[in-house]
Amino acid sequence: MAIWLDQASDGFEQRFAAFLTTKREVSEDVNVVVRAIIDDVRARGDAALAEYSKKFDSIDFANVPMRVSEAEIDAAVEAVPAEVLGALKVAAVRIESHHRRQLPKDDIYEDAMGVELGSRWTAIEAVGLYVPGGTASYPSSVLMNAVPAKVAGVERIVIAVPATGGTVNQAVLAAAKLAGVSEIYRVGGAQAIAALAYGTETIAPVAKITGPGNAYVAAAKRHVFGTVGIDMIAGPSEVLVIADKDNNPDWIAADLLAQAEHDASAQAILVTDNAEFGKAVEAAVERQLKTLNRAETAARSWRDFGAVILVKDLKDAIPLANRIAAEHLELAVADPDVLLDGIRNAGAIFIGAHTPEVIGDYVGGSNHVLPTARSARFSSGLSVLDFVKRTSILRLGPQQLRDLGPAAIALAVSEGLDAHARSVAIRLNLER
Amino acid sequence: MAIWLDQASDGFEQRFAAFLTTKREVSEDVNVVVRAIIDDVRARGDAALAEYSKKFDSIDFANVPMRVSEAEIDAAVEAVPAEVLGALKVAAVRIESHHRRQLPKDDIYEDAMGVELGSRWTAIEAVGLYVPGGTASYPSSVLMNAVPAKVAGVERIVIAVPATGGTVNQAVLAAAKLAGVSEIYRVGGAQAIAALAYGTETIAPVAKITGPGNAYVAAAKRHVFGTVGIDMIAGPSEVLVIADKDNNPDWIAADLLAQAEHDASAQAILVTDNAEFGKAVEAAVERQLKTLNRAETAARSWRDFGAVILVKDLKDAIPLANRIAAEHLELAVADPDVLLDGIRNAGAIFIGAHTPEVIGDYVGGSNHVLPTARSARFSSGLSVLDFVKRTSILRLGPQQLRDLGPAAIALAVSEGLDAHARSVAIRLNLER
Repeated sequence: MAIWLDQASDGFEQRFAAFLTTKREVSEDVNVVVRAIIDDVRARGDAALAEYSKKFDSIDFANVPMRVSEAEIDAAVEAVPAEVLGALKVAAVRIESHHRRQLPKDDIYEDAMGVELGSRWTAIEAVGLYVPGGTASYPSSVLMNAVPAKVAGVERIVIAVPATGGTVNQAVLAAAKLAGVSEIYRVGGAQAIAALAYGTETIAPVAKITGPGNAYVAAAKRHVFGTVGIDMIAGPSEVLVIADKDNNPDWIAADLLAQAEHDASAQAILVTDNAEFGKAVEAAVERQLKTLNRAETAARSWRDFGAVILVKDLKDAIPLANRIAAEHLELAVADPDVLLDGIRNAGAIFIGAHTPEVIGDYVGGSNHVLPTARSARFSSGLSVLDFVKRTSILRLGPQQLRDLGPAAIALAVSEGLDAHARSVAIRLNLER
Repeated sequence: MAIWLDQASDGFEQRFAAFLTTKREVSEDVNVVVRAIIDDVRARGDAALAEYSKKFDSIDFANVPMRVSEAEIDAAVEAVPAEVLGALKVAAVRIESHHRRQLPKDDIYEDAMGVELGSRWTAIEAVGLYVPGGTASYPSSVLMNAVPAKVAGVERIVIAVPATGGTVNQAVLAAAKLAGVSEIYRVGGAQAIAALAYGTETIAPVAKITGPGNAYVAAAKRHVFGTVGIDMIAGPSEVLVIADKDNNPDWIAADLLAQAEHDASAQAILVTDNAEFGKAVEAAVERQLKTLNRAETAARSWRDFGAVILVKDLKDAIPLANRIAAEHLELAVADPDVLLDGIRNAGAIFIGAHTPEVIGDYVGGSNHVLPTARSARFSSGLSVLDFVKRTSILRLGPQQLRDLGPAAIALAVSEGLDAHARSVAIRLNLER
């Protein structure tokens, strides 16, 4: 049973505010261990990677090469069921065509004064993509990270993936191939992040690292941030479904469970204006839970963090949704556009009853790497912009320097920066 | 005397590589202190702010209000010399018109399949801007942070500035007024960052914090990252000047010193193809140092981190510049466009001998908050994009769900996510 919050009841605001600040993740303090691993990889390179991989992933680089060979990648493509390979291709094509629209354009212009200025975009030269091992080794995430990097023009994309006993998920290899990534290493954990950031004899360093990972990977990414760029630190996933009573409760229940099955810390929230409907969804959740392979995970998530929020009017859902700032927001209501206009904080919005969030996970075309834990208030999902950077351009001639120089000198002097003032004044033959 | 690196000499590559990894900053480990301050502000709010402000900034909120009044701001505008106020206005207008071009456009479209998808941009609701105290309290930085936020459409912009004895730099207040910021608090340090992130009785929390600060401020920003967004953690400033022999050595020396005077950890580098010219610049640096108010800081920077790199051909400067990935890059050469085409890693590029970097610090129009410490390899200067976020939009009808659903189901099944598969299958009346 999920928690119920009723807008009509006394103390709703306090209960909602408390609900908002519920911590869903126990942050393991692994910093000491992670720092030691990173220092070791920096100092000993491949030798350290070999040692940690033997210890944590039961893999011996004396028998299995660290780098996955082209032949192994090609064999994986052959081995993946045709239906899955076909679906990966559908996804890759759609992700590529959507992300191509995100490519920023240079903007160099001359202003009224004759100053040439603007912005020039270039791709990051080399990017590392971390892919978790085990059941969290998702081929869809490989596409969601690698395709935008490719679209951005990143020349070198490197995948690091832990390979327990040497085996890498074949669908992951196939997705990498589809995305055009051929540099794949069987290393995981903090040691993989260290290798990507600082380089070893085998792995050349990259300039940015993206992709999800466990507490060790997350801590390592925080640690190397600055030396390289990193993407956001992903928290457990969440969905907020705003649904009126004219929905099929089974559909909505399935959507809530699709989120809950990810992780016991995931969160699924239903907002509705109809208590009967809310109860029907809850009942459907209980029914459907019985037939899920990940029933235990989903049940824990729903029990510990699931919620049904009853509002007086669907429009009241807007401010609540903006405060929740969900990673995923479904608008399963008769007139979704009214709500859509009012929503400003959400990672992604799925409109209407025929747009389950799961479509966005795989084949919608938009990215499934989205801001979690209320960070949609200030950040965005992964995009091509994460793989490019902008350089400002400024060009003055003698006349423009004469026109603008005096203002620069005045500000430099007022800030007490003599050499700043002189750098302009000396070109204008002014005393400084 | 700066270090000399000669491309024609043996061991250049090793020396250059070592030069690249030189650490210029001693990172003080202030985490324990900072964490305690943050916890205290979270627990005790205004009372904690009052205590820390009394202790660190000699200011008693019993006598001076925490919030700077409108009257005080207006008085500051009156008190600032007309020349400086005029220069701030020139800067504000140019920064605004340049940044207005950076506003991203929504892109919602229907693809060939009839799926509606795209990106919608919204402004962050509330942003905090940290302004350092003392000599590093720069009105120009207020404009560079606040104007882009305003252009982005941020509704609430809050400035926190330490005010030793209660006094806030009048030019800072004037710049805030020009940028349309009226919520200004006399608090600084880690306690200010905590107040902005978590809120107190007086200060409502914000969603993102930008602006430079000392080691305590930087550590506090890292600490609250996740609860709020933060901008980059700025390191000491640097300039790379590529200059041929036809430059006036005095102009180039002034540019190098304009960087060096910022901080003893700042770095100024000259790349030239002419040793005589390099020596002339060095001599000019020594001469000019004598008449600077911040001579000691500039001299230390030039002695400890300054460099002259002699290349055989100016084109050889391109790969070196890309590896250095300087915050500021001046191209003071006869044909700058040849070099410009090859540069991909730089925060900002200043083209030609009449574009000293200082123009970009104040009145060029582009932002002066730029990536330091080689992070231009993977990140960009501050822009309107730092104050907005993107929401993905996806809308399918029944037909589009029938068309795309099977691929989503295939991928969900292959990833072992039952509820994901069901969320789609149930809408298509498929067994799952």
